[in-house]
Amino acid sequence: MGQPADGAADDAERVDWRRLEHLELSPILSASLDAFHELGFHGTTVREVARRVGVTVPALYYHHDSKEGLLIALLELSTSDVLARAHAADADGGDDPAQRLSNVVEAIVLRMTERARLAALEGEVRYLSPENRQRYRTVRKGVEDLVLGIVEDGTATGAFDVDDPAETTRALLGMCQSIPRWYHAEGTLSPEEVAGKYAAIALKTVGATRP
Amino acid sequence: MGQPADGAADDAERVDWRRLEHLELSPILSASLDAFHELGFHGTTVREVARRVGVTVPALYYHHDSKEGLLIALLELSTSDVLARAHAADADGGDDPAQRLSNVVEAIVLRMTERARLAALEGEVRYLSPENRQRYRTVRKGVEDLVLGIVEDGTATGAFDVDDPAETTRALLGMCQSIPRWYHAEGTLSPEEVAGKYAAIALKTVGATRP
Repeated sequence: MGQPADGAADDAERVDWRRLEHLELSPILSASLDAFHELGFHGTTVREVARRVGVTVPALYYHHDSKEGLLIALLELSTSDVLARAHAADADGGDDPAQRLSNVVEAIVLRMTERARLAALEGEVRYLSPENRQRYRTVRKGVEDLVLGIVEDGTATGAFDVDDPAETTRALLGMCQSIPRWYHAEGTLSPEEVAGKYAAIALKTVGATRP
Repeated sequence: MGQPADGAADDAERVDWRRLEHLELSPILSASLDAFHELGFHGTTVREVARRVGVTVPALYYHHDSKEGLLIALLELSTSDVLARAHAADADGGDDPAQRLSNVVEAIVLRMTERARLAALEGEVRYLSPENRQRYRTVRKGVEDLVLGIVEDGTATGAFDVDDPAETTRALLGMCQSIPRWYHAEGTLSPEEVAGKYAAIALKTVGATRP
């Protein structure tokens, strides 16, 4: 075992970021995800979720304090997960900015495809109260900062050719975040294929050669 | 005047695609846009829109047959506009794929920033009935086909270095479509600045040099 000098990075590398284990949602969260997808956040009532789960409204309130609490729970499940995986993917790329960016985009896109329904919920964030929106944005900013750091590193070393690291990072995340809009599990491309294609496109976008 | 050999392209060039005139929405559509933004499609009722406009529900139904009709009207206003402008921007680029792509991305991003609220409504398309979703997708496919054609032309002539034109096109549109999520008119970047940055990023993404 021993004492690794760089504990955080070492821990991150142990996460198998290419493998997405099945996400176990509670019956209430699973029904909430279905309802939010079919009806949107505002079209969903706590009563409707309770009906789908087959519990009473008070029983549901025992576990979650509000409809917003259900969305928050799903969003945090969705986003905390991507952050850990993105950091592991980054660590796995060592010191090579191109490999790091390729890995991180691959990790993000795998989640956007394997868990498209959960990822698509992020469009509902604007309906949260300002306080809760802030909590969620803090998590999301972690991913943005990670990608921005890689783009800046690559630009500094000359591995990338980027004019505006911040805007390029936003564009890269935007292309990934749009995937749940069109990706369907029953389509012709597997999650791995989409992830591979987007990693290659991301490297083009930063003017890098393939790692 | 004379008889232009290529009438369609000539017409398209006459559209001043860099200039977005103020979009005149009827009071009903303007109130619908506000309500959809604050409450989402499912959270909005026809009664709520009527209340905001100051008309009775039957008076509103005289003009629009349903809540879905209101969303459709806004979406068609939003999308038919971008198609005409994108074609004009393309024609304005002549035979140079890099200039054509730069122009079209600039036109799309100008709309995403100048008319961010209208463009953001596209996230509600999934709530439409299958028939209406299809109508809307036909319009949207026009933009996708236009960009794909440019990417394919540029790849064929060697002006671009692209592995997968279809996926690259989807990524380019995805990065543009994500802009309404973060763009605010009161921010530090003007629509023209964002459009210029995204045009440059798009050219990097297809492996082109600046036109």
